[in-house]
Amino acid sequence: MPRRPFTEDHELFRDSVREFLRRHGPGITRDLWLAAGRQGFLELGLGEERDYRYQAVLIEELAKQTMALASSLSIHFDVVAPYLVELTTPEQRERWLPGVASGETVTAIGMTEPSAGSDLAALRTSAVRRDDGWVLNGSKTFITNGYSAGLVVVAARTTPGARGKGISLFVVERGMPGFTTGPKLDKVGQPEADTAELFFDDVWLPPGQLIGELDGGFAHMMQRLPQERIGAAVANIAHARQILDETIVYAGERHAFGQAIGSFQHNKFLLAELVTKADVTRAYVDQCVVAHAAGELTAVEAAKAKWWSAQTQNEILDHCVQLYGGYGYMNEQRVARAWKDARVTPIWAGSNEIMKELIGRDLGL
Amino acid sequence: MPRRPFTEDHELFRDSVREFLRRHGPGITRDLWLAAGRQGFLELGLGEERDYRYQAVLIEELAKQTMALASSLSIHFDVVAPYLVELTTPEQRERWLPGVASGETVTAIGMTEPSAGSDLAALRTSAVRRDDGWVLNGSKTFITNGYSAGLVVVAARTTPGARGKGISLFVVERGMPGFTTGPKLDKVGQPEADTAELFFDDVWLPPGQLIGELDGGFAHMMQRLPQERIGAAVANIAHARQILDETIVYAGERHAFGQAIGSFQHNKFLLAELVTKADVTRAYVDQCVVAHAAGELTAVEAAKAKWWSAQTQNEILDHCVQLYGGYGYMNEQRVARAWKDARVTPIWAGSNEIMKELIGRDLGL
Amino acid sequence: MPRRPFTEDHELFRDSVREFLRRHGPGITRDLWLAAGRQGFLELGLGEERDYRYQAVLIEELAKQTMALASSLSIHFDVVAPYLVELTTPEQRERWLPGVASGETVTAIGMTEPSAGSDLAALRTSAVRRDDGWVLNGSKTFITNGYSAGLVVVAARTTPGARGKGISLFVVERGMPGFTTGPKLDKVGQPEADTAELFFDDVWLPPGQLIGELDGGFAHMMQRLPQERIGAAVANIAHARQILDETIVYAGERHAFGQAIGSFQHNKFLLAELVTKADVTRAYVDQCVVAHAAGELTAVEAAKAKWWSAQTQNEILDHCVQLYGGYGYMNEQRVARAWKDARVTPIWAGSNEIMKELIGRDLGL
Amino acid sequence: MPRRPFTEDHELFRDSVREFLRRHGPGITRDLWLAAGRQGFLELGLGEERDYRYQAVLIEELAKQTMALASSLSIHFDVVAPYLVELTTPEQRERWLPGVASGETVTAIGMTEPSAGSDLAALRTSAVRRDDGWVLNGSKTFITNGYSAGLVVVAARTTPGARGKGISLFVVERGMPGFTTGPKLDKVGQPEADTAELFFDDVWLPPGQLIGELDGGFAHMMQRLPQERIGAAVANIAHARQILDETIVYAGERHAFGQAIGSFQHNKFLLAELVTKADVTRAYVDQCVVAHAAGELTAVEAAKAKWWSAQTQNEILDHCVQLYGGYGYMNEQRVARAWKDARVTPIWAGSNEIMKELIGRDLGL
Repeated sequence: MPRRPFTEDHELFRDSVREFLRRHGPGITRDLWLAAGRQGFLELGLGEERDYRYQAVLIEELAKQTMALASSLSIHFDVVAPYLVELTTPEQRERWLPGVASGETVTAIGMTEPSAGSDLAALRTSAVRRDDGWVLNGSKTFITNGYSAGLVVVAARTTPGARGKGISLFVVERGMPGFTTGPKLDKVGQPEADTAELFFDDVWLPPGQLIGELDGGFAHMMQRLPQERIGAAVANIAHARQILDETIVYAGERHAFGQAIGSFQHNKFLLAELVTKADVTRAYVDQCVVAHAAGELTAVEAAKAKWWSAQTQNEILDHCVQLYGGYGYMNEQRVARAWKDARVTPIWAGSNEIMKELIGRDLGL
Repeated sequence: MPRRPFTEDHELFRDSVREFLRRHGPGITRDLWLAAGRQGFLELGLGEERDYRYQAVLIEELAKQTMALASSLSIHFDVVAPYLVELTTPEQRERWLPGVASGETVTAIGMTEPSAGSDLAALRTSAVRRDDGWVLNGSKTFITNGYSAGLVVVAARTTPGARGKGISLFVVERGMPGFTTGPKLDKVGQPEADTAELFFDDVWLPPGQLIGELDGGFAHMMQRLPQERIGAAVANIAHARQILDETIVYAGERHAFGQAIGSFQHNKFLLAELVTKADVTRAYVDQCVVAHAAGELTAVEAAKAKWWSAQTQNEILDHCVQLYGGYGYMNEQRVARAWKDARVTPIWAGSNEIMKELIGRDLGL
Repeated sequence: MPRRPFTEDHELFRDSVREFLRRHGPGITRDLWLAAGRQGFLELGLGEERDYRYQAVLIEELAKQTMALASSLSIHFDVVAPYLVELTTPEQRERWLPGVASGETVTAIGMTEPSAGSDLAALRTSAVRRDDGWVLNGSKTFITNGYSAGLVVVAARTTPGARGKGISLFVVERGMPGFTTGPKLDKVGQPEADTAELFFDDVWLPPGQLIGELDGGFAHMMQRLPQERIGAAVANIAHARQILDETIVYAGERHAFGQAIGSFQHNKFLLAELVTKADVTRAYVDQCVVAHAAGELTAVEAAKAKWWSAQTQNEILDHCVQLYGGYGYMNEQRVARAWKDARVTPIWAGSNEIMKELIGRDLGL
Repeated sequence: MPRRPFTEDHELFRDSVREFLRRHGPGITRDLWLAAGRQGFLELGLGEERDYRYQAVLIEELAKQTMALASSLSIHFDVVAPYLVELTTPEQRERWLPGVASGETVTAIGMTEPSAGSDLAALRTSAVRRDDGWVLNGSKTFITNGYSAGLVVVAARTTPGARGKGISLFVVERGMPGFTTGPKLDKVGQPEADTAELFFDDVWLPPGQLIGELDGGFAHMMQRLPQERIGAAVANIAHARQILDETIVYAGERHAFGQAIGSFQHNKFLLAELVTKADVTRAYVDQCVVAHAAGELTAVEAAKAKWWSAQTQNEILDHCVQLYGGYGYMNEQRVARAWKDARVTPIWAGSNEIMKELIGRDLGL
């Protein structure tokens, strides 16, 4: 049966992404960013009339290459873009969007802090009012694109003691005195993605760096998290499905005990279960993509898509590793790297536990 | 977000089903059959222009009452109907359809045999050619509606030793000499459904009782199994979702240790997981319903929907029982009966194992 | 490898139990109780020098018959007995023990109440002091042996508002005015076991009916729950193992698609997993039995054994039902009844959730 | 309750291992090997009177450090040692054992081949008879200690076409012409362990390099696999338990949303489940250790212990990573490395699938 969300136009766009990746992927280099900009990929989320399904197609094709590619680029065109488009003045947009669209300026978003983790409302990075703007102090961690970003949307406390009600958003730019970046973090997977700590030591922010409402940052983030989460879900299931498809080919070719290993009933049934789970999961994520494109996706539905797809992805990849046997434990194998790459998806951008908390609350419990 | 398959017309129809069930349900009585006939429910699958989504709506609402109600009626209007409409001559249709449409004639389908189980091609019930028709001998078991059926579509071997290539379909009617029915089987659940063994002892079948191609019965069944399976999937998830919704209400009302039991984080997260799984599953089943209404559903997709929904249903119900504590073990509680009712869904109409075999083969394994 | 707990003497005793059950089992009749008394089974827990391993052997052999048999008898000789032996005066023992030992007096224990469920400290049944004793009012539910018991140990509140610190234990005897029993509860499984509600309507209790410390009942129960729980664990795994063994035989004999169904790799691996899980579980339960016989078992260890064995039992039985196919859904099959019988084990005698709470607290969390 | 297998002597030995590791661990250096030799650890499996429980204690303590440390050393003293002691002539023992005992000679065992994987009987490395001995050709892969080993027990085909009946065992020594080693394999985890491919290019083996029966190598391996597998099980559960204990401490210290994360009920119940599973698993492995020390462990029991412990270990570690949140994805965290280290245990030394095949066969299926 056909997938629901995508028309012929979307599929043509998909072809162009694939062709692009054949030429430019999958490494995350400065050249890739600029080429993606030239191709128009980075302004999908910047225009007046946006069709989210194009972003979904782009995320899918990136994730089929690597999770790192999907996450690095989608943080930029899918996660940061709405902040820069929707919370900004014309002057701010004029200043920032050209570089964002061209790939000259890589962007990041700084929410998570070492001490707070999932508890966003407890963040400690502070922006203290001065006559001529703000002074930013604090640090952020686990920031995708953190090392190379030229522009970072940073959540900071502007009213002490107010938890979610005293947070504002600022654009911090590379080169501002006091803004430094730690080394690339040494992660379990996604080594291509630069993930780093950001440090703010008396960084002076002119008034024009504030975006959105003063003290309204928490609400701004809450409103935009569903897009980040459905984008994550799109990547999770596309990535899992791709590796699963490759594993099915492998299981049909690799022989042991005189037959293809995939033809052993245990493996055959297992693969039948995994493709079912992948299809079922994609149906839900597709339904969410359509709803989001129509402006109808709720935060709770996005939360469901995110945690479920993350768990599904990790389950599928774990079985795929097993099917490769000893080779599945060798880093030279794509399945091995994919398995490590995926382990972060139930943790980042709102852990599975946070998602379940949101869903549970929505049940009135 | 809105569910995909259903238009306003389908939802109006849903209202009429609900109203009907308020008045006539949920017992499976002769009156119910006749009332359903008068309401037009039993001819949804008999018309020239059929929209499968109406059948899906009807199955959903029946399953929200009990699995037995859904299975008893859907065997009739969703499973048997296509045989009687698509494989018959005008004369046969004229003879049988009025009673089927009115509910005067309850129908059943006889595939499974005591010795063969899931291996349909191994069936032993035989129809031996005579000058004036056929002589049927053998037996069938686990036949839903078997006890009350006035008309049974029976698969019988017409060519010995040919496995799937020597099977034909016959309509056996109540009152034919040699056709008897065993007592209602004493099942774990669904006591309202009459499930029985059928015995054929030299039953003479005039030529006009054959439907479809001689020796083509296996293919006829294979072509119609997807509809039975997607119908089963629709029932599975609607039933599970209904009981889950009731359990969420219970968990919000029942108190222990000074708080609603659903507000304990363990239970809250569990319920968040279950509603997610229910939603994800329904998205896939909905997608299959749309595809089937458009004539695009494959046998493999139906198989995926069937086993996955059956497993999901049983997982959900098992957790629901646990949430009711000791009360969940009392037959007077709906959740207890629902749990027993559901246990058969991964077994009947093609067990989960058979579904996985089909899906695995489709992967080329 | 040999099982750890049992010596040759224990195995000889096991033989005698088996022989007894061949003659008297498995129905739970008055004759069975009396025969068990004559055999000495009912005083295993009453003597000065007790070796818990004999009780464990007895529970195992009873559970291999049915869960109901194990639970009905073990409530008597394993759960109630320690209360009557350890918390009583010589006069009380003289009064009650002969009937308990002979099986003339069936016993029960009344803890759970309709409104309180797992929250024992919240119980509402009250015993109000009078000059000549106590007046008992309230009710208990889900009481195994409740319908036929001649003697019930009842937990009642003697100090209002004191939660666990104001509860005392009384022996209530059949025939006391105001003590009545509801009808046998209609349960999902274990129909042979009589489970009932008990009602106390101004029941006068002479002073000699109090056992243990006044207001010390909660502690008395906490001290004896480990034995109840390890006994439950012994039954759970013995029952599951027995049905699993029978299922393996069935899977080796039942043929489909030209081979024994157990020889299909999917089923073969599944059965390999189930026997492993059964063996692993039994190793832990055995270790607990040895520890309990030596007086070294902690409440937390008993809690681990109870919830884990209950979950294992239910998982195993669910797979066994599936292996029987349609027959697994027929009440005439032992596997079907066993599946229903087992569903209560993660609920009663401290639900799995309560067990995890205990274990989690022990981790300092 | 006390653990079964170990006496005070074993616990004293455990203390000495811990003290040793404090001074010499956990890196796998030449110094470590020599120090372990001086300490007598490497001859635990070489003596006349061996008590397997000492080996088990040593494996446990090594695994608590890292899986790599346990596997590298246990291949030597637990896996290879029995071949060199039991299948050799006095002359051979005199030649090889001193170096093995002192740690001068690191050993390895070469079974797995690139094309054969789990199907040991299909191995292709060949040893062709010549007047003066044998000529070895072929290769082995995934060989632990392969890079640094001075002595390798190699399984080679001595009778073509005979599958398991034409395999013999040879000792191949570093420096023999034609014997080369590939680079250290780049694995998902256990980077400290040297794992390598071995190449044999016309390696001349004098007659004295054959150990055991000519063409009897397969049986020799089968007889010794149980010890390798129970040793693997000991390591798996000791490693998992150690990381779990560390995670419980972390969960009690790390705060979010105003409380220790381990005190959230979801996490508390999860940790309760994991410690239960760890305890249950250890009970079974302990039982196997006792049985093996008494010469009573069967191959099937060892297979159960191996696959179950490997699965348990990986489940536990996956949850531990999640409990660490973003930090669980950083290589600097022990939990992250442990998670990657453990992924190979369901694959190596007989995959979980092979174990289930063995167990299933033992059921007569």
